[in-house]
Amino acid sequence: MCGEKAMSPKITGELLRQLRQAMKNCKYFSEPIQAYIIPSGDAHQSEYIAPCDCRREFISGFDGSAGTAIVTEQHAAMWTDGRYFLQASQQMDNNWTLMKMGLKETPSQEDWLISVLPENSKVGVDPWIIAADQWKNMFKALSSAGHSLVPVQDNLIDAVWPDRPERPSTQLRSLGLDYTGISWQDKITALRAKMSERKITWFVATALDEIAWLFNLRGADIEYNPVFFAYTIVGMNTIRFFVDLKRLSNPAVREHLQLDSPSKPELSIQTFPYESVYTELQAICAALGPKDKVWICDKASCALTQVIPKTHRTPIPYTPLCLAKAVKNATEIQGMKMAHIKDAVALCEFFAWLEKEIPKGNVTEISAADKAEELRSQQKDFVGLSFPTISSVGPHGAIIHYRPLPETNRTLTVNEVYLIDSGAQYVDGTTDVTRTMHFGTPSAFEKECFTYVLKGHIAVSAAIFPNGTKGHLLDSFARAALWESGLDYLHGTGHGVGCFLNVHEGPCGISYKTFADEPLEAGMIVSDEPGYYEDGSFGIRLENVVLVVPAKPKYNYRNRGSLTFEPLTLVPIQVKMMNTELLTQKERDWVNEYHRKCREVVGAELERQGRKEALDWLIRETQPII
Amino acid sequence: MCGEKAMSPKITGELLRQLRQAMKNCKYFSEPIQAYIIPSGDAHQSEYIAPCDCRREFISGFDGSAGTAIVTEQHAAMWTDGRYFLQASQQMDNNWTLMKMGLKETPSQEDWLISVLPENSKVGVDPWIIAADQWKNMFKALSSAGHSLVPVQDNLIDAVWPDRPERPSTQLRSLGLDYTGISWQDKITALRAKMSERKITWFVATALDEIAWLFNLRGADIEYNPVFFAYTIVGMNTIRFFVDLKRLSNPAVREHLQLDSPSKPELSIQTFPYESVYTELQAICAALGPKDKVWICDKASCALTQVIPKTHRTPIPYTPLCLAKAVKNATEIQGMKMAHIKDAVALCEFFAWLEKEIPKGNVTEISAADKAEELRSQQKDFVGLSFPTISSVGPHGAIIHYRPLPETNRTLTVNEVYLIDSGAQYVDGTTDVTRTMHFGTPSAFEKECFTYVLKGHIAVSAAIFPNGTKGHLLDSFARAALWESGLDYLHGTGHGVGCFLNVHEGPCGISYKTFADEPLEAGMIVSDEPGYYEDGSFGIRLENVVLVVPAKPKYNYRNRGSLTFEPLTLVPIQVKMMNTELLTQKERDWVNEYHRKCREVVGAELERQGRKEALDWLIRETQPII
Repeated sequence: MCGEKAMSPKITGELLRQLRQAMKNCKYFSEPIQAYIIPSGDAHQSEYIAPCDCRREFISGFDGSAGTAIVTEQHAAMWTDGRYFLQASQQMDNNWTLMKMGLKETPSQEDWLISVLPENSKVGVDPWIIAADQWKNMFKALSSAGHSLVPVQDNLIDAVWPDRPERPSTQLRSLGLDYTGISWQDKITALRAKMSERKITWFVATALDEIAWLFNLRGADIEYNPVFFAYTIVGMNTIRFFVDLKRLSNPAVREHLQLDSPSKPELSIQTFPYESVYTELQAICAALGPKDKVWICDKASCALTQVIPKTHRTPIPYTPLCLAKAVKNATEIQGMKMAHIKDAVALCEFFAWLEKEIPKGNVTEISAADKAEELRSQQKDFVGLSFPTISSVGPHGAIIHYRPLPETNRTLTVNEVYLIDSGAQYVDGTTDVTRTMHFGTPSAFEKECFTYVLKGHIAVSAAIFPNGTKGHLLDSFARAALWESGLDYLHGTGHGVGCFLNVHEGPCGISYKTFADEPLEAGMIVSDEPGYYEDGSFGIRLENVVLVVPAKPKYNYRNRGSLTFEPLTLVPIQVKMMNTELLTQKERDWVNEYHRKCREVVGAELERQGRKEALDWLIRETQPII
Repeated sequence: MCGEKAMSPKITGELLRQLRQAMKNCKYFSEPIQAYIIPSGDAHQSEYIAPCDCRREFISGFDGSAGTAIVTEQHAAMWTDGRYFLQASQQMDNNWTLMKMGLKETPSQEDWLISVLPENSKVGVDPWIIAADQWKNMFKALSSAGHSLVPVQDNLIDAVWPDRPERPSTQLRSLGLDYTGISWQDKITALRAKMSERKITWFVATALDEIAWLFNLRGADIEYNPVFFAYTIVGMNTIRFFVDLKRLSNPAVREHLQLDSPSKPELSIQTFPYESVYTELQAICAALGPKDKVWICDKASCALTQVIPKTHRTPIPYTPLCLAKAVKNATEIQGMKMAHIKDAVALCEFFAWLEKEIPKGNVTEISAADKAEELRSQQKDFVGLSFPTISSVGPHGAIIHYRPLPETNRTLTVNEVYLIDSGAQYVDGTTDVTRTMHFGTPSAFEKECFTYVLKGHIAVSAAIFPNGTKGHLLDSFARAALWESGLDYLHGTGHGVGCFLNVHEGPCGISYKTFADEPLEAGMIVSDEPGYYEDGSFGIRLENVVLVVPAKPKYNYRNRGSLTFEPLTLVPIQVKMMNTELLTQKERDWVNEYHRKCREVVGAELERQGRKEALDWLIRETQPII
């Protein structure tokens, strides 16, 4: 997430004029370019980015987590998905056209460019911030229409951004085996085993969370994400680590990485400045044998990918680090469970507090979010939030990724639905939970919608499915009850969750979009978060983080084995919002069993921490329904 | 479907020796090739093929509808899907290795080739029978591993097949507006409108059902499929039709196509011999202007696709004909409904007959299939079957696409489950229906499995979903009840169905495989056919053909509108096989309403046709369940 922006539009006329001038300036590219693409990522294709990388926000005003801007001589257009339609339309001035992705009538970026560009146009993009697979698709589409996609080495937004912030370089934190379960040395060995299985000689890691996971290191370069700017290139006998070298003066980090006394030569880490990855990779590629193969994620930057000659390049949709990281080991699972219990303690106290304070009329979206953060910060090993808290009342709840700001800040009352989607980073795990509550009397329609969302949440959470099933096959379970009444929500149902890492991670998820997700496996952790949004009125979302676990149904067809989910999030779901008549007996049983577990597990911790009021609230909120 | 083959393996040692010799023969390719791929399609990528095109069957013995053989110097391997695992293993001798597609441990054809081939190998394939998209994927994978994919113009199977049959050339039948709803002239006009919308100057049609649909003509070149061998190239002012010219001597066909007196010059059809499509397309391409674009399906043959220079070629996953054909017009829907009522009449009579005859011990799988065909043939406008009847008792039911043969023919008894999957071509429509019955007392396990399959069938059939939903998002609904008990089936849930055309057609379907299916639209017709197969014991499948229709749920989120299905198949589902205690009230209501409709609609027609015994059976089988 980028800066603290208003919900009123940014004035962009002058900026766009300067950008269009830069597009014609031969200093940046030998010929004028007719369109410039501004993706939202950084050089690591991070979802959340550091302030210095918030170029798409800088040029347009739109600060949602996903979006691509394209500026031509005549037009400025922004593609974003259903979560951000409302927000983007409020943050951008009328120089910008909003392109609503996922709607049938919305053209793709390629089709739109082809429809607006004059013949033989040049379309520019910074090759460091466009992923190789996106470059390829865009390149093909434009070529087939007679245009060309060209890499512009100097970023043109930076050229019109005089006070652009510095790239952060925060202190590194090393994690011991008690948190990670596996040493970085063993992770390197496992990676090399995968490489030799596939006859791969080099592996280039570019994703920040993969590098943090591999070395059991964390940083704080990007808000909410405990990662640090780095690259790594692993060969069968060497490890090259590219990072701001100042960060390695910390003795604990030197010791952790065995920089001064490597245990084995093949586990000796060579360190290089962050910026030298390009030239080092060039040097490695210049020395490749005819059969040498280099693994790089197809979502890595186009700039770095193209350093590797095509005959040696083996692009992969998910790296072995991404796959290994997704399946949590026993230590990580234990840590995630502990983190979720602490998180639930904080939220129980928070909701008990809200219940008492809201009628006094002094609680706002911002003060509520602050209170939730304060209560979380009292828990052991708290590091920070895992994403900006979505604390939204009434109509704000319908802005799917709303973030309260001073000028939009609304007071919580007993008359409106309150939705809070929040999470934290603890050293032992990452949390992400959404609850939708009413502190007065919800309307029949609000209860009806809440109940359909609950039915969808339960349908996924309680689903039993064969080993090898991909998450996207479960997405419709979350929607069936809404669909039956003609309702739906315009976002996916779940995402992978890291362990003291990014709150969104691949390669698994639950979505109607059939991205190349990997099959669900025991040990993976995803969110289950269906919703319903009534524009201008209210928003409902119910989110638990759930662990994939083996299931033991009656039969075992072809010995494939079955899986199901175990909720890690243990925060009561407000019974007052349910129309229990719409629930089946099975669904009522699920709610009661879930609440029983919340009371047992979180209740014990509340007791231990002496949080009496929150415990009373928990016990009251987890009474069985009939 | 190809010839009538035994379920005992074909002896292939000598044939493979000859093929491997041909692979080394410079007469066919300038250098020896190390592997030869034998896809199952013809030059039109038809699913069902004429005997002259049954090359994969000829070389291997395996005659299922889907499969790809690859022969190397050392190995012979066959890839097929879950429907055919058992059948393929029975029909192939031990020269062949079965590659079970869809299982995690099964390598892809590319990966397998790379693992077995010596360095720098040449892999040959007939470019006419490999689709362009398959060629491209295989080409890429092999190239990246240092091998090459090469087109072998003479088919090497034909080279070792002395008594290969002739290509058929049956009589053409023209269909009037009362069957088609739209004249071929209007279809051409609509096609040209799509072309000019996308700035396309030529369209090459290669799929036989698309050409039959476009011209409102039918043939009988391929058993069960009322199509004929032809190509068509449509420009903005010209129509080129490639077909065995002898077939155009029929005056009714000449009149229908206005060959002797075209109404307008742009609707004048130029006719050419079937074989001249290659040279004509070359001539067209030689005269293309710099901006001219040619549409061709990415599943068209590699040979024809590569005639079009890459800069002019616009490959599309589904042609505008395919999309237009999928959405049935009111005349076609009416025809399909009539065809299904007639089909139900025949099946009611068939089941009543079975009930009476089975206890006498004289009914076999083959005689039952013959009886069903005989009864269907008594119905008005009957043309033939739409696919080979799957008539299977007990353990044969677990062979998903079983076809009874004299040496496997089993007698129907009151002790085993009977599964019949069958359908017919009528001039007004195509049918495809599966029922699973027991004529004695089914076991508790058989009933339990049947009931899960029924629950899945109902979950799809009764689903309400938003406009724009793709069929693959509904697939898990069909499996949820089976999954919950640890069961599953290894095939998709539904396929598009043509109107007096192929019983399997694109671009929509319901499958866990996320092929690029097009969103479901009102007017599309698909099958809904979940199953359960207990190897060596019994098979269960329940299939209705269903029409996509608008639904009117309580709400209408973002004015998207909703869809649901209306069953066209109206044949009772055997109540004796149900464990009604496992059904919810909603499911029982669905069964009762379905049976009420069967009784009302099919009952009236049985009455009209004076088929008293079948009517009595229908009335008894459609009593409401409680």
